[in-house]
This record gives sequence, C-alpha cells and structure tokens, in this order.
Amino acid sequence: MTAPPDRRAAAALDAGDPLTSFRSRFPHPDPARLYLDGNSLGPMARGVEERMHATIEAWRDDQVEGWADWVALPTRVGDRLAQTCLGARPGEVLATDSVTVNLFKLAHASLDLRDGAVVTDAANFPTDRYVLAAVAASRGRRFVLAGSVTEALAVPDAALVCLSHVDYRSGRRLDLPAVTRATDAMVLWDLSHSVGAVSVDLGRADLAVGCTYKYLNAGPGAPAFLYVRHELQDSLVSPIQGWFGQRDQFAMGPTYEPADGIERFMAGTPPILGLAALDASLELVADAGIAAIERKAAALTGMAIELADAWLEGLGFELVTPREPGERGAHIALRHPEAWPICRALIERERVIVDFRQPDILRMGFSPLATSFVEAWDAIDRLRRLVTAGDHRGVDTSARRIT
Amino acid sequence: MTAPPDRRAAAALDAGDPLTSFRSRFPHPDPARLYLDGNSLGPMARGVEERMHATIEAWRDDQVEGWADWVALPTRVGDRLAQTCLGARPGEVLATDSVTVNLFKLAHASLDLRDGAVVTDAANFPTDRYVLAAVAASRGRRFVLAGSVTEALAVPDAALVCLSHVDYRSGRRLDLPAVTRATDAMVLWDLSHSVGAVSVDLGRADLAVGCTYKYLNAGPGAPAFLYVRHELQDSLVSPIQGWFGQRDQFAMGPTYEPADGIERFMAGTPPILGLAALDASLELVADAGIAAIERKAAALTGMAIELADAWLEGLGFELVTPREPGERGAHIALRHPEAWPICRALIERERVIVDFRQPDILRMGFSPLATSFVEAWDAIDRLRRLVTAGDHRGVDTSARRIT
Repeated sequence: MTAPPDRRAAAALDAGDPLTSFRSRFPHPDPARLYLDGNSLGPMARGVEERMHATIEAWRDDQVEGWADWVALPTRVGDRLAQTCLGARPGEVLATDSVTVNLFKLAHASLDLRDGAVVTDAANFPTDRYVLAAVAASRGRRFVLAGSVTEALAVPDAALVCLSHVDYRSGRRLDLPAVTRATDAMVLWDLSHSVGAVSVDLGRADLAVGCTYKYLNAGPGAPAFLYVRHELQDSLVSPIQGWFGQRDQFAMGPTYEPADGIERFMAGTPPILGLAALDASLELVADAGIAAIERKAAALTGMAIELADAWLEGLGFELVTPREPGERGAHIALRHPEAWPICRALIERERVIVDFRQPDILRMGFSPLATSFVEAWDAIDRLRRLVTAGDHRGVDTSARRIT
Repeated sequence: MTAPPDRRAAAALDAGDPLTSFRSRFPHPDPARLYLDGNSLGPMARGVEERMHATIEAWRDDQVEGWADWVALPTRVGDRLAQTCLGARPGEVLATDSVTVNLFKLAHASLDLRDGAVVTDAANFPTDRYVLAAVAASRGRRFVLAGSVTEALAVPDAALVCLSHVDYRSGRRLDLPAVTRATDAMVLWDLSHSVGAVSVDLGRADLAVGCTYKYLNAGPGAPAFLYVRHELQDSLVSPIQGWFGQRDQFAMGPTYEPADGIERFMAGTPPILGLAALDASLELVADAGIAAIERKAAALTGMAIELADAWLEGLGFELVTPREPGERGAHIALRHPEAWPICRALIERERVIVDFRQPDILRMGFSPLATSFVEAWDAIDRLRRLVTAGDHRGVDTSARRIT
C-alpha cells in the first residue's frame, strides 16, 4: 500500500481541480468549521441567496402579479432538473411537494397499471418504507420488505419495486439502468441521496422521486421532485386530485379532469421561494456539469477512503461504503461501536459537521461543488486525532437527533 | 338612503381606526396601485421580510444546525395559529404541506371513523371538490355534490361534510359553531378565505384546513395548516405515512408507528422559509387581535357596499355578498355580465388590483391590516368612473388567468 496523500498533496489536488473555483461561490461563514453534512442539508450558494432575495422583492413589489412568472416554476425547474441531473426529457419532471408526498402519489397511481405486490428493501429510507406499506395496505396489496435489493428484485409477483439509487446509510449506488432492465415490475427510484452528486441516467426508467435540499442545495424543506416516463403519464392519475393538477385550472369546473402530461401530478399551490432557490442552485450544476461533479465526488470520497484505510486501522472503524467509485455516491459511511459519541465530539470539539445513522454509522458527505480536498483531508485527520486520543469519550451525547 | 361617505369621511375613518398604524408595517411599493387582491395573495409585511432574511442567514451560517430550531416550527406555528386566529387549543394545529394535501389527509383519515357518504356543496372551492370526490371513490363511498350548504347538511347518510367557512366567490360566511352542531356527520372546515380576516371559533369542531398566503400574508405557496380536535387525534391515522409523522423519527425503525398527537399528520420535511414567514406574520395578528381585525373587515366591506349601492346603480352590477357583516368575510363580490373586461381594465388602466371568478364575479378583498378606508373609497370610485365611461370595453382580455 502506498503512503496516503499528505496535506500538500491534497492542496495540489485542489489546484488541479477543474471545479475548484465553485467553492468560492459558497459563503464559508466559519473557516474553522468543516462542513461534511451537505448530504443532509446542502450549503447555500451565493447565487441562491441572491435569487431568494429577488423572489422576496418580487412578492413585495409585484404582489399577485408575480404569479405570471411563478406559475411556470414547477415545470420549468423540473425541465432544468431533467436536463442537468437526470438524463430525462422535457416534460418528464415536476418540482413540487415533498419526497414523501410525491412517493405517495406515484406509488398509489402505479398500482392502477399492475396487479401484484409492493416491494422495497429493508435498508431503504424510512419514509419510503412507511409510505409504501400504507399504500399497499390501502390498495389491498401484499407489502414485501425484502432483506436486500437482490431479494426485492426476485419477488415474483411484484407490481412495484421502490429502491434508493444511493443508500442513505452505506452510500452504495445501484446501477440504475441495469436494475431497471432486470425486473418486469415497475421501478420507483428514490434519488434523494444521488441527485446533484452523481449523474442519474433515468433513460427508460418508469418513476422516480428525489429531494433537493441535500446535494442540490435548495434549502431546508425545499420542494422535492417527481419523474414519470413520458409514455406512462397519460395512464397514471394522482390520488391527490388538486386544482393545480386540473386540466383547465381557472375554469374551476364541476369535476376533476387531469391535466395532460406531468402537470397532472401537481396538487396544491407550489412553494415559490423554495422553487426559486432550487432554480438558482441548478445554475451551478449546469455550469459545472454533472459529469465533472461526479468525477470530483469520486476523487473526494476516494481520498477520504484512502486516508481512512491508512489512519484509522486498529481504531475500531469499518468502511461500509463500496471502494469502487461507480458503486458509491458522494458520502462515505464508517461503522464504529462508538459512532454516536464520535459524531457528537467531531461536531462539538473538532467542528467537523458530520452525521450519525442508527445504529452505528458515521456519515461524511463530500458535497462536490462546495468541498475542497484539503477540507476532506483535514476532516479525516481530525477524526484520527480525536479517536486516537479518546477525546470522544465523555462528550455530551444527550443532544437531540435533528437530521 | 343617506348619502354615502365622501373621501374626507373615509379619511376620518382612517384617523379613528385603531389599526391604522398597521398599514405602515406593509411596504406600499407603488402608491398609485390599490391592492385589493390580498384574498388571493396577501401583501408582505416588513417584519415578514426581515424574518425571511434572518432565516436565509440562518441556513447560510448555521447550516444543518439550524434544524435544532426549525424542527419545532410546524407545531410552534400551529400553536400560534390556534391561539391568535382559530379559537383552538395548543396541540390541535399543525402548519405544513398545502391545503390540497392536508384536505386529502384529513378527509381520508376521517372515513375510518364513520360509514357513509362524503358530501360538499357545488359552490365549494375546486380543490376541495376534486380531492373529496377522489377520496370518496378510493374508499368506495358515495360522493354528494349538494346544490347548497343546506342540502349538504341534509344528506342523511353523510360521514363527512366539507364546507368553506367563507365562500371564495360570494364571500358568504357560515356560522361555524351552529353548522357544526347541526349535523351528526363530521365536518371538515376549509378556512382558507376566512383565517386572518375574521375570527374563527373552532371550539369543538372536528377537522379543519386552511391556507396562509391570503389574509395571513405568508407568501406565495406558503405552507397551509390543518386542525384536528384533540379528542379525535389518536383515532385518526394519516394515509400519507411519512417519516416526520413517525413516533420516534430518528430511530428509523422498521415499521410506521404514528406519533402521539397532531404531529402524526406531518408527512415529509416541512418548508422552513415559508413557516418562518408565517410565524412572523402571525406576530401582526397577535399585536392587532383578531377581533379588531374582524371589526375593521366589517367596516371596510360595509363602506364599500354602501358606496357600491350609491354609485353603481344602473351600471349592471349585483352585490352577491351578504349585507350583514357577521355573514361575510373581508371580500365583496359583484356580479356583472362584463366582469372579466372590467377586472382587466381595473388592473391595467386604473391600477386597482382585483380578481375575477367564473363566470361573472368581480372580487375585491380588503385585507384589514394593510388597507385603508381611503384606499377602499378610491377603489370603488375608480370602478364607478371606469364603468360609467365604458372604458372597460376594448381592453385586452387575452391575459392568462393566474390567480
């Protein structure tokens, strides 16, 4: 094994990084803080801050006439997402509501097309599992919580299989096109932990949802998105039949008739401030290019893994994240029996902002546009020093889990 | 009939108005513009602007640690709504999602408690009618679109009756406690067109939803709210079972178990910017007091009706709104065969911002905290002069309806 990079080598990686200038487009309010939790809440870019201020001014000054522009945001931002991040076509993506609500809409609607079970894997994100179980129960379908993705794909009578593209704990990334091809069931992809960090090739995938407050940096509780393959749209009807999904919204006619295309999956009035922030954030993705972002994610996580291998041996850590760059996203997960106190001590004593997942996972997210190689190096260095010195013991672990 | 007030009399009403100082807490970006569309999108108060900027700064500077404060916003803002506007108890109101999604959740859940039909009146707001029809169909219930509120309340096998407290077109206000008592069905109130304009006495009402971007001035697409009477909460389960409604959210356990109390009606991650704006807006309501706001709404609409009676006779208008103040909200509706060109001409030529509802309704909303008596006087005066001169004819009526 070769020696791991020293700090100068990390600085050299920054100097050679084609995306290095993007880091300056994010305020770094506290230089001593290393922010490795962009996979829970992405940092704010300056352009996003400006756009939010402009949107507040538009409400203040234009009042209701602002809607002449705002009304197109869910589809316009959706198209931008499709083009910059998702490998989808115009008219296939809509930015609106939360992941939970969008997942509910698509899962429920998809069962009109297929008989059979609703399937996901036990490691999938909680909201996915909970929503799907309830949808299956209300539609009288069998719900299968499979022990693995492989088992989920092997369920013979599956109508719908829901999978996360990148696992929120391990960071493992699935081969989305290959998995989609491997099953006759419809696949509903949750892209929350991959979108904006690695390229997504929806290609001929059926259904997807995802969140925008992680790697897309659109702010706390920013609107989520949903994707429906063009050819499926006219045969799916949202269970939440709201006026924004109505064909002729302001005719306000007696009965609901779904709009043509993706707009039928709208429900109520969309959140304009969040959509504006997302729109501005996608400008950075467009400028950088998702392929370059994915390359940097691979390099950052690759260096972090290399350092962890070299420095954390014998300290009780186990790398959970795949070592093959194409098989992971932009975060790494380290298992440790004391992961929770280590997480708290890293945050409170070392100002390395990371997070924890039950029961024993320490997550470090390397938001590609905002994070430098030196920051990643420093973070693993601080982790090494903390645990070597045993300084995580005795830290206050009573803090409420908030993300 | 006595002579209607002249402009000096309107100015005297402003001088004697205990809420007159609140008007200066709203920027008035264009002094020539009379904004009477606060019933579609309320104007922004300065305190709301400041709070939004502070929230953007908190995301920028505190990043994920902002959630330590934000996580309580849905219930904290809900409690503030309960106290300032709704006559409800702490723990009965939650600020989250859209009216459409909240209506879906509560209507769906309520049917677990009662057999029978889902009922609303044909004049109810479109999203209510559409959502309820779909919920009834998916639950195998009869859906009744009654010809009137009276007919809706007379449906013998009703499980759920959904009614708007203030009608979005006519402005007619129902006696909420009396109607609630008049039926054995559960009543789901839509408060979108009354909350923040007149007092709401939920008292022992069962269920309610409402929006906050009208008279509560929380911004375009701001989060809505829902109310569930305390005694009912533990027997209702949301059909959208998301991780924010889970009992121990960050345990991320295998199965959904609804949280105790109102939090079980959360779905996904709540929109923080909109919640912060709503929280700040409720400070104005608390400062003014909803009883004083309701008195001013009655006085503003009363003067407008008096002027309309005096000035618009013979011009083809018919007042649709009840003349008894306790039977209306804070907007008035005038029926006119040329309502649409009059609406467009008022906006484009006279800068009186009003809106139109199919097929022939001109709406004028008098947002009590932001609107003066002189503004209301001027608006009716401009309407009189416009229609008397026939200046609404030939106006461009091709504008897209946006609100």
